[in-house]
Amino acid sequence: MGNTFGKAFSITTWGESHGPAIGVVIDGCPPGLELTEADIQLELDRRRPGQSEIATPRQEEDRVEILSGVFGGKTTGTPIAMQVRNKDVDSSKYDIIRNMPRPGHADYTYQMKYGIRDHRGGGRSSARETIGRVAAGAVAKKILARHGIEILAHVVELGGIKASPMQVTDIKANDIKANVESNPVRCADPEAAKAMLERVKQAREDKDSIGGIVEILALGVPPGLGEPVFDKLDGALAGALMGIGAVKGVEIGSGFKAAAMTGSQMNDPFEMQNGKVVCSTNNAGGILGGISNGETIVCRIAVKPTPSIARSQRTVDMSDMSETNITIEGRHDPTIPPRIVPVAEAMTALVLADHLIRSQLYTRSYSK
Amino acid sequence: MGNTFGKAFSITTWGESHGPAIGVVIDGCPPGLELTEADIQLELDRRRPGQSEIATPRQEEDRVEILSGVFGGKTTGTPIAMQVRNKDVDSSKYDIIRNMPRPGHADYTYQMKYGIRDHRGGGRSSARETIGRVAAGAVAKKILARHGIEILAHVVELGGIKASPMQVTDIKANDIKANVESNPVRCADPEAAKAMLERVKQAREDKDSIGGIVEILALGVPPGLGEPVFDKLDGALAGALMGIGAVKGVEIGSGFKAAAMTGSQMNDPFEMQNGKVVCSTNNAGGILGGISNGETIVCRIAVKPTPSIARSQRTVDMSDMSETNITIEGRHDPTIPPRIVPVAEAMTALVLADHLIRSQLYTRSYSK
Amino acid sequence: MGNTFGKAFSITTWGESHGPAIGVVIDGCPPGLELTEADIQLELDRRRPGQSEIATPRQEEDRVEILSGVFGGKTTGTPIAMQVRNKDVDSSKYDIIRNMPRPGHADYTYQMKYGIRDHRGGGRSSARETIGRVAAGAVAKKILARHGIEILAHVVELGGIKASPMQVTDIKANDIKANVESNPVRCADPEAAKAMLERVKQAREDKDSIGGIVEILALGVPPGLGEPVFDKLDGALAGALMGIGAVKGVEIGSGFKAAAMTGSQMNDPFEMQNGKVVCSTNNAGGILGGISNGETIVCRIAVKPTPSIARSQRTVDMSDMSETNITIEGRHDPTIPPRIVPVAEAMTALVLADHLIRSQLYTRSYSK
Amino acid sequence: MGNTFGKAFSITTWGESHGPAIGVVIDGCPPGLELTEADIQLELDRRRPGQSEIATPRQEEDRVEILSGVFGGKTTGTPIAMQVRNKDVDSSKYDIIRNMPRPGHADYTYQMKYGIRDHRGGGRSSARETIGRVAAGAVAKKILARHGIEILAHVVELGGIKASPMQVTDIKANDIKANVESNPVRCADPEAAKAMLERVKQAREDKDSIGGIVEILALGVPPGLGEPVFDKLDGALAGALMGIGAVKGVEIGSGFKAAAMTGSQMNDPFEMQNGKVVCSTNNAGGILGGISNGETIVCRIAVKPTPSIARSQRTVDMSDMSETNITIEGRHDPTIPPRIVPVAEAMTALVLADHLIRSQLYTRSYSK
Repeated sequence: MGNTFGKAFSITTWGESHGPAIGVVIDGCPPGLELTEADIQLELDRRRPGQSEIATPRQEEDRVEILSGVFGGKTTGTPIAMQVRNKDVDSSKYDIIRNMPRPGHADYTYQMKYGIRDHRGGGRSSARETIGRVAAGAVAKKILARHGIEILAHVVELGGIKASPMQVTDIKANDIKANVESNPVRCADPEAAKAMLERVKQAREDKDSIGGIVEILALGVPPGLGEPVFDKLDGALAGALMGIGAVKGVEIGSGFKAAAMTGSQMNDPFEMQNGKVVCSTNNAGGILGGISNGETIVCRIAVKPTPSIARSQRTVDMSDMSETNITIEGRHDPTIPPRIVPVAEAMTALVLADHLIRSQLYTRSYSK
Repeated sequence: MGNTFGKAFSITTWGESHGPAIGVVIDGCPPGLELTEADIQLELDRRRPGQSEIATPRQEEDRVEILSGVFGGKTTGTPIAMQVRNKDVDSSKYDIIRNMPRPGHADYTYQMKYGIRDHRGGGRSSARETIGRVAAGAVAKKILARHGIEILAHVVELGGIKASPMQVTDIKANDIKANVESNPVRCADPEAAKAMLERVKQAREDKDSIGGIVEILALGVPPGLGEPVFDKLDGALAGALMGIGAVKGVEIGSGFKAAAMTGSQMNDPFEMQNGKVVCSTNNAGGILGGISNGETIVCRIAVKPTPSIARSQRTVDMSDMSETNITIEGRHDPTIPPRIVPVAEAMTALVLADHLIRSQLYTRSYSK
Repeated sequence: MGNTFGKAFSITTWGESHGPAIGVVIDGCPPGLELTEADIQLELDRRRPGQSEIATPRQEEDRVEILSGVFGGKTTGTPIAMQVRNKDVDSSKYDIIRNMPRPGHADYTYQMKYGIRDHRGGGRSSARETIGRVAAGAVAKKILARHGIEILAHVVELGGIKASPMQVTDIKANDIKANVESNPVRCADPEAAKAMLERVKQAREDKDSIGGIVEILALGVPPGLGEPVFDKLDGALAGALMGIGAVKGVEIGSGFKAAAMTGSQMNDPFEMQNGKVVCSTNNAGGILGGISNGETIVCRIAVKPTPSIARSQRTVDMSDMSETNITIEGRHDPTIPPRIVPVAEAMTALVLADHLIRSQLYTRSYSK
Repeated sequence: MGNTFGKAFSITTWGESHGPAIGVVIDGCPPGLELTEADIQLELDRRRPGQSEIATPRQEEDRVEILSGVFGGKTTGTPIAMQVRNKDVDSSKYDIIRNMPRPGHADYTYQMKYGIRDHRGGGRSSARETIGRVAAGAVAKKILARHGIEILAHVVELGGIKASPMQVTDIKANDIKANVESNPVRCADPEAAKAMLERVKQAREDKDSIGGIVEILALGVPPGLGEPVFDKLDGALAGALMGIGAVKGVEIGSGFKAAAMTGSQMNDPFEMQNGKVVCSTNNAGGILGGISNGETIVCRIAVKPTPSIARSQRTVDMSDMSETNITIEGRHDPTIPPRIVPVAEAMTALVLADHLIRSQLYTRSYSK
């Protein structure tokens, strides 16, 4: 279980890294939305491997096929099934991990949970699973765009190098977006991006890997999204983002800094602007009591360094329960945050689309 | 919606701060578990206000009543309904917030979402809502205890003062537990506890409030809990903990520190101990690929300072959409982390009990 | 598990026949709906025992208390908790069934499922459990009424005596309603009602019981309710109605008669009336492809005779696994259909309210 | 929404009649189950069109492809995605129904619900959608078989012709099974089968269609399956079976006959057999209080006549809201019950597999 996400806009993903295909089924997409394979492909291309000097060279075309739910270029309200065939698959180099779990990977826990696993390329726990999330996220983004909501993620720290803080409200989202896509580390600060890129290259030379922090922004979210008590918007975002592989921390607004602030510093005063209630500051990160307050939603996630490194590591051989060493062959991404950007955007879009649809019911007082 | 939590061990909470009562219904509790009101009261007394010099003096007995699901001292497998009557209720001092949302509170967002709200004492968004969570958490803890799992939380930072780091594996859980309950700030480091207590008093004198960090440990968790891909154990914990009021960040294991580590530092090597596979270190915080690996589960949450402070704050009067100031009367907790300890334990217990029951099905290979 | 019903308008019931109380929590009620305890009491009084010469004389006031979710006489969008205290409880006469399952009752199956049960008065499997359903159904009816939808049930067959068939479209719903409540068997045909009443009395004299058929109508349902493929409106109604104790069959529209019809007889032609598409006949019972078509929804349920009869019956003593006889003491309803009327209405209202709210999202083409 | 079924063994179907493909994703299949495409194909071949003289001649190979969740011939606990490509598709003859809803079909209600639909071949409401159900049902059957549970359906009435009643307990299930598959009407009574076949042919000559009744048996079900109050086994079966297209009635055990029985006739006495508690009769149809009692589960469904008939029928043209006539071209099944047999088996298997897995948790008293 656990392969379905969302209550009103719901997705179910399936597929293993070296199986025949990877895919997703969306249930609950409103009818009448214009949707083509090109819309999906755009986002899949952003997460696709083999695109830059710092990403894994696995060559996958990752062509998406829409198999249902769209008629005459528009969604019909029935399930949208999408899939991508796996192609560049050499499973032989994974024979070594059949019995030897890689440190930092899910090999050991899947084996303990299920007693059986498709070890090839990490099987279901592979990052290729995120293809389904990103494809569905592309649909969620289109729904959100209709309501003026935009999702945008960027790398704010990599290997200890921090981007200079920026005021989201001072820069147009499109500028950030352009900056982010202009460099392989997906950092909106061009100077920091250069240093980050050097840090990545050095990590690869060291046969090591580095982690980082990704910030996700949701702009244009109206007040009223989120269902207290257990489906709060911040709870949903935290669950969705922590559920991305390699993420070890999530914070909203001032996040961990809030722990050292006082109430008079932290509380965002309300004021009037153009006839609307707004907050003078945004320490809350756009969410109060689990419900959006109309300000930009700001999340940050801590991403651990890639667990696959070219150095020898200690592990056990579960065939005879002996201690041993493992050296993982092949070339891997020396850092994950740049490639996690489209995935984090997708998960945020999925949370917001789900809550947008759910909130349409309950935000309005009962007029009819 | 959103008032139900859990899929196999499921709870539904209800009630407002100044309504007649607060309660919870548990569905999915296994039959045959010994359960009395005293078991629940024990945990409710830990969260009850008016217990120490630094907590709100609202006097509530908070006597729990079990209304169903228990027969002859044992659970029957049918829903367990529990409730607490509200008693010490003076709603008049809340008249001011009917139209003036308090900064940092959910007044504004509830109003925007529902168009109507019970403003008295914060209504549904009051911390009194956690009574239902803590009562259900007490049942979850009993289930976990049968499987040798213990949940334990403590304050590790308050108002910027940090407790000295401790190795959980080096100290017996019972010792920590005893230390935690020996001081009003619920810090396991007695020296730090003293400084924290002074810091709290100073904040109150300043008519201000402070935040902090709480660490939650789950000891004795077997490998195999957690349902990939969207119901991962770390995702579920992050969602549950971020959903507690005032929490702005959640991290697992090395958490945000992992962002600045290298793979060779972060990866926990596997080794053999007493015939079992264990990890030499625990940077993962007990979870790999969303599934427990048998190590202690370690979470930390960032808690913002209490939003209710005695200073004048800027807000708006929504009756005429004018800017104004608000001063919140009454005495409030100057800091939340000590009182969040039992709530964070409860949510962690609820997540683990739910996943324990779910995992009983799927962990075992299909033998019959 | 299994004590929660509905996805958008969701209820959770709890309580045992001889426990302290019985109740329900509603999640998902839209805010701003006027609601008082009197609204609920009206429906509870219809299902209450001890009202007529043919119903069990158990004297229960069944006073409902609303504990949350209503403020200033209106719903707030937060959970509505309601409960009724159990009063007229003499458990001693149930000692005999602790080990001897009553034929036709759930004693045996609960014992086998849970290994423990509250045997007093049938515990959780008692018809008193329907108090929660009827209370929640009263709220659902109010929501439906705002949209011009009315639910109405009546006994159409009892102990083999059939009411004369009526054309719902020819009689005003209010007339049927008045007729139904004018006699203790709740039959809209006064002549048949008299014969049915005699049949009931005879059954009681025979120390036996009789079954019957109840018809449920939903008037004013707009086209578009129901979610294909697995949450079809007819599937949801069938599941909800079959889930009422003692129901052994459910049919929609022509029901089992359709099995012997030809397509040219069964198909309802479409025609225009006052600018609207309508069906010339209603063999479909208001539902096509699982979605409402705008015609009156017509369901019928087969209700078995009351399993509690005053005759000696064969059973086993599970304490020593010997065969034995059991004679059930006390006086019981000699027939269930009249008392099932408000319960069947409640379940139908709950299904429709849930689907009404869900359909508000997806019926409209995507305009914004 | 509504395309997912089951809580512990959960399936999501997708696909339209004339879209590129039809498929299903299973979540919650236990790991370690041997599974091949041949297992699935066996059941798909039973529902495939073009097999007999009385079924639609649409030629579809309906070759299933397993895309995930199986490794080395065994399930891994991850989602099992299966799909079938649509091939024999001539959409042109469906142009006429784009604006003219066919009586008895879902054309009108889908249009009203979604404002858009894939009209070709009925789109999502086509019986081809059941491919996903039957494929998933084949997996459910394999799980049930491991626990000694067998599902078996047969036609007991067709066009008014009734098969002679049989005692399931007196005949071996395999004999029925063999009889059922030996004739195109899938009736276990060979004499009745001949008359039914003649009746079908006559209906086709009349340019008409006929309905019938299918009985579904579940043999070997242990006591304890079913979750009261809202997920009762009979409620779940009724919901699942009524949700199959063309089904207008569902009954369990004595069903509608129970309405005319007395309690002393209806109640099944308990007795001892080989040290086990059994029922002397089976009027309950294997379910008491929503929980299986160990007897054979017996359901019957009323199937309406095929709505597609070759006669001219009255309908409306929704492009200009005028009344008109429609004659549906092409050849269609003149009767549905024989082809519904594998679908009804699949839905029953899905319900039981779901409840079997769920019941594994809660049936056992809490021993550890």
